[in-house]
Amino acid sequence: MKRTTPLYYGDYLQLNKLLDSQFPESTKYGAQAHDEMLFIIVHQAYELWFKQILFELDAIIREFRSNKVDESQVHIAVHRLNRIAEIQKLLIGQIRVLETMTALDFLDFRDVLYPASGFQSFQFRLVENRLGVRSAHRHVYKPGLPYYANLSEEHQQIVRQSETEPSLFHVVQDWLERTPFLNVHGFDFLGEYEKAVRGSGQELRVSETDLNALLDDECHEGLVRENKRRLSRKAMVAALFISLYHDEPILHPPFQLLTALIEMDEQFTSWRYNHALMVQRMIGTKIGTGGSSGYDYLKGTLEPHKVFSDLLAVSTYLIPRSELPALPEDVRTDLGFYYSSK
Amino acid sequence: MKRTTPLYYGDYLQLNKLLDSQFPESTKYGAQAHDEMLFIIVHQAYELWFKQILFELDAIIREFRSNKVDESQVHIAVHRLNRIAEIQKLLIGQIRVLETMTALDFLDFRDVLYPASGFQSFQFRLVENRLGVRSAHRHVYKPGLPYYANLSEEHQQIVRQSETEPSLFHVVQDWLERTPFLNVHGFDFLGEYEKAVRGSGQELRVSETDLNALLDDECHEGLVRENKRRLSRKAMVAALFISLYHDEPILHPPFQLLTALIEMDEQFTSWRYNHALMVQRMIGTKIGTGGSSGYDYLKGTLEPHKVFSDLLAVSTYLIPRSELPALPEDVRTDLGFYYSSK
Amino acid sequence: MKRTTPLYYGDYLQLNKLLDSQFPESTKYGAQAHDEMLFIIVHQAYELWFKQILFELDAIIREFRSNKVDESQVHIAVHRLNRIAEIQKLLIGQIRVLETMTALDFLDFRDVLYPASGFQSFQFRLVENRLGVRSAHRHVYKPGLPYYANLSEEHQQIVRQSETEPSLFHVVQDWLERTPFLNVHGFDFLGEYEKAVRGSGQELRVSETDLNALLDDECHEGLVRENKRRLSRKAMVAALFISLYHDEPILHPPFQLLTALIEMDEQFTSWRYNHALMVQRMIGTKIGTGGSSGYDYLKGTLEPHKVFSDLLAVSTYLIPRSELPALPEDVRTDLGFYYSSK
Amino acid sequence: MKRTTPLYYGDYLQLNKLLDSQFPESTKYGAQAHDEMLFIIVHQAYELWFKQILFELDAIIREFRSNKVDESQVHIAVHRLNRIAEIQKLLIGQIRVLETMTALDFLDFRDVLYPASGFQSFQFRLVENRLGVRSAHRHVYKPGLPYYANLSEEHQQIVRQSETEPSLFHVVQDWLERTPFLNVHGFDFLGEYEKAVRGSGQELRVSETDLNALLDDECHEGLVRENKRRLSRKAMVAALFISLYHDEPILHPPFQLLTALIEMDEQFTSWRYNHALMVQRMIGTKIGTGGSSGYDYLKGTLEPHKVFSDLLAVSTYLIPRSELPALPEDVRTDLGFYYSSK
Repeated sequence: MKRTTPLYYGDYLQLNKLLDSQFPESTKYGAQAHDEMLFIIVHQAYELWFKQILFELDAIIREFRSNKVDESQVHIAVHRLNRIAEIQKLLIGQIRVLETMTALDFLDFRDVLYPASGFQSFQFRLVENRLGVRSAHRHVYKPGLPYYANLSEEHQQIVRQSETEPSLFHVVQDWLERTPFLNVHGFDFLGEYEKAVRGSGQELRVSETDLNALLDDECHEGLVRENKRRLSRKAMVAALFISLYHDEPILHPPFQLLTALIEMDEQFTSWRYNHALMVQRMIGTKIGTGGSSGYDYLKGTLEPHKVFSDLLAVSTYLIPRSELPALPEDVRTDLGFYYSSK
Repeated sequence: MKRTTPLYYGDYLQLNKLLDSQFPESTKYGAQAHDEMLFIIVHQAYELWFKQILFELDAIIREFRSNKVDESQVHIAVHRLNRIAEIQKLLIGQIRVLETMTALDFLDFRDVLYPASGFQSFQFRLVENRLGVRSAHRHVYKPGLPYYANLSEEHQQIVRQSETEPSLFHVVQDWLERTPFLNVHGFDFLGEYEKAVRGSGQELRVSETDLNALLDDECHEGLVRENKRRLSRKAMVAALFISLYHDEPILHPPFQLLTALIEMDEQFTSWRYNHALMVQRMIGTKIGTGGSSGYDYLKGTLEPHKVFSDLLAVSTYLIPRSELPALPEDVRTDLGFYYSSK
Repeated sequence: MKRTTPLYYGDYLQLNKLLDSQFPESTKYGAQAHDEMLFIIVHQAYELWFKQILFELDAIIREFRSNKVDESQVHIAVHRLNRIAEIQKLLIGQIRVLETMTALDFLDFRDVLYPASGFQSFQFRLVENRLGVRSAHRHVYKPGLPYYANLSEEHQQIVRQSETEPSLFHVVQDWLERTPFLNVHGFDFLGEYEKAVRGSGQELRVSETDLNALLDDECHEGLVRENKRRLSRKAMVAALFISLYHDEPILHPPFQLLTALIEMDEQFTSWRYNHALMVQRMIGTKIGTGGSSGYDYLKGTLEPHKVFSDLLAVSTYLIPRSELPALPEDVRTDLGFYYSSK
Repeated sequence: MKRTTPLYYGDYLQLNKLLDSQFPESTKYGAQAHDEMLFIIVHQAYELWFKQILFELDAIIREFRSNKVDESQVHIAVHRLNRIAEIQKLLIGQIRVLETMTALDFLDFRDVLYPASGFQSFQFRLVENRLGVRSAHRHVYKPGLPYYANLSEEHQQIVRQSETEPSLFHVVQDWLERTPFLNVHGFDFLGEYEKAVRGSGQELRVSETDLNALLDDECHEGLVRENKRRLSRKAMVAALFISLYHDEPILHPPFQLLTALIEMDEQFTSWRYNHALMVQRMIGTKIGTGGSSGYDYLKGTLEPHKVFSDLLAVSTYLIPRSELPALPEDVRTDLGFYYSSK
């Protein structure tokens, strides 16, 4: 696998194309606005990183689609999600770079960009669909218009196609549902858990309403209909099991995975929020370049575009280690063997 | 001013007290929970930084209370606000440190802290009051109870006293109202500005509603009553003048000041938001240790506890440099002299 | 484990002591220098974090001193080292906060601090000793004087005592030496590895000198004498094994541990370097307050105070996965059982 | 300046080119190495940011080449340097992203890149030359070979051309030398300064050697010959004046400029250092892909590639405000007028 002909850095990175892709519009419509170059480069850097995030998400989803996810694949998925988390810090940092442009500087070229807008990033729409943002629950900036309305025909097709493909949310849910320990060797996790919660003698650690949502299919379905829960009840129970017993060696990787998903969700939310604050700073309450109401639209995406909120809800159900139902010895032993099998 | 007796690092920093102030409660009530030490130290670090932020805010307010704020004092204020901004990055970073504690780890000692809670930080209440958060507009976690209800009697008194003292908001508003350029040498800034906005022949850059809010006292008062604006109309106009002409040398420090205030507000908001996300991660939707509803309470503070939102609204009124009313020559000359005088 | 009497935030955090520990010296010797408060608070925050780092290091060392370190303990150690890494980011961020003080501002109170100096932080000396910085190899700021010379008698004793206690370096080395896979079931790792390196037919991937250092006790000892290597040869080989086969599930936690150690070392080095740059900015090439030569002293500590450099040297020995000696099936099976046993 | 035809985001950012520029070599030489995509994207993001940094540096240099630099231009230069500082934080953050790749992962595709190397980034060479890194003082990775030896013919020409063009160092030096206050109205700054330093009665604040370097041309020239100083004596004196009297309003922008230059230099140094640490982590002490010795080469660039070290040396000459020679009243008045004139 050694090369026969030498490779050059510039060719490898296609610098001739990459560095010949910055064409400020303001030069065509009068004097060049100095800060338009920054505006272009920041957005190009975003698109490069979106490509990388898609690349990592695709790889994770591909591995998880197979019915059998072994411990090694969970480990690799955690590794890749941690990489995405580091990239997300850059995404947030890039907002600070853009904020070195004043609102007045932006006005120097804002008109000539019409109607181009960050809302037209088809890659970001793909990222959202890959994660599992549901089209029906998206916050849209013009009621009645689909979220991909302002994309090119070609990109609309790609984005709509992605709606039909399995998302990270789905493969994670499937994987959780396959967790093998919930009912083995006569150990009934949910039953033992309920006993522990109720049996403490004093006030319950978990409210009846919350408890029912976990124990009862109908309650759970009700929450789903009200859009207050999305994950299946079975997957919720598995996530709770993993979180309660995360001290067990075999559960380290699964727990790291749940933590990494929460982390990623949290950072996308932070990025959206910082993005919204920046837009408010640039354009006040004016209509955004894409026709949306800018700050309000972006702030509106915070909650509905979270994908793994139910994993946060798991914390509601935790009880102290000292009150945890003990795992039967054979279950503990099995923890070393069964997980990856099914 | 040279010392006569040597000073030692440990004495100077009072390390005997500082490092003897960490007493995990869990040790008293059973086994020590490893992560309680982190919990204590993070909160102590917060309190140290709050003390520093108060120290800087107090110094800025003190200088600005004098009627005459010269350019040097504006410069120093900017310098100190930039320092606060660097400290705020630490405050946000400290959340990430605390997030290395899992929700289950927190449960190991959560019960024994009851009812202690971060809401009992009297210094943070002071920071808010110094900034200019208004008591009547605060988001409270128990309707009917004052925001300082859970403080000690001594701290309640300090916090209530601070409500009556001038805030950063007030001294900045006063300073803006004293801006001398708005009506000199026959130059009527607001009149010229309105002409520029209306005269572009095509659709207005600023909506009639927005424009009226700037030009008309009654409209402005209406917005104030609806809690949509807080800054006086005169101060808004001055902030707009500074933002539109920030290329003028004499306006650099004032514009840097406005930018630094926006920055500080934005970072406090980011910190609150990240704090809310962390609390959700730790306790789900459970009732917080202080009796509040945790995540919901904290998220509820985001908008009402912003102090300088009106400075963001200034962006709504900006017009491109190419359409700016030209400053008469004698105004431009005066920009070098008048600003600090009153 | 529920409380019977209520606990208050201020009491819990000992705020009466904590917030009554800032006494600027400049107030005693003339006018108060505004920035001295920042100087005090930054250093106090450092000491709080050093206490936390010591707390985490002590816990890791305690667990590792037992001969039998199971997978769970490795996992917990990784978790705690990751926490230290997050704290280290704060340590670096605090330098940026201190850099908001200009050199001239520092001069306003520098004289009255004489001879107090950060070199007198006994906790930082403890951190270094806990990590495994060797007294004999320390870079000192005054030849002939021990590194703890300027500490109080009490602190000197604590620091010297810590020299005799097991360090993180030692317990990690012992744990590596216990790695059970290097020679089981007739699988001779080192022999297979040498074959793979030599057998590629073309130029060696690893130089003869480097290879000998790994294979030959005498070569290794020579490097140790020249202070070019510190880790035992056996531990080096184990670290290489873990790094080459880190795709094996059982080796994930050990590999995460090695990575976290490298990370921690790297961040301490970064912090030292940033600290050195800041000192240069503050005092130029003047003699530092502690009598050392400031920047030069601090820069001099970079290399000798690294503890886990040998783990970086492991990268020198890596070969591509495609050329890795295959693990015999029974070794791969054993990887699931043996690691924690010995 | 309004558009007549609509502009689309994808066209504006040339996404068809940008997102079609990632071609992993490993796919051509066997199995695709997953992490090569990250490797490509990180380096492309670097090149985008280098382009932006060059764009900002060019603009600053262009403005400063004119003999007359007014206060507004100083302000704009500070603004642009602060932007570069924010970008530099991203550059450092990108190292952390790349560090999510393990050394073994890198080996999966390292061979097929030969001899491509980051040392072949002609844009980074341009950045260095624009800053003022001197070709004769560069640390090279192969003695005898020019630093641009491994660039393409076309890029060699661009880089060599840039050596002959004015650098930021030169235009800043010229601007400092034009500082008008050093000798006006009979106020002899250097004479007064020497009196203040010598007159304190006790030991000198500045060593005789240091003092002579400032006061005496021959001493200064000696240091220049020994490569211990680079800035002209006249410019050094001006930088000292600005630093000592930075409380004067007219000197705020110049002082902010000096601070921003130090900041930028420091961050490039930090980036180089972090880069070196990462390379060590990836390849140990192996020969780097470009034929250099990797870590050692990179560490070797730290000191010689600093451009504004002399500005740090200014701190050596500072004396406390309380000992500063008072400025005569007419000089203080003039500070408001003379600076920009020449």
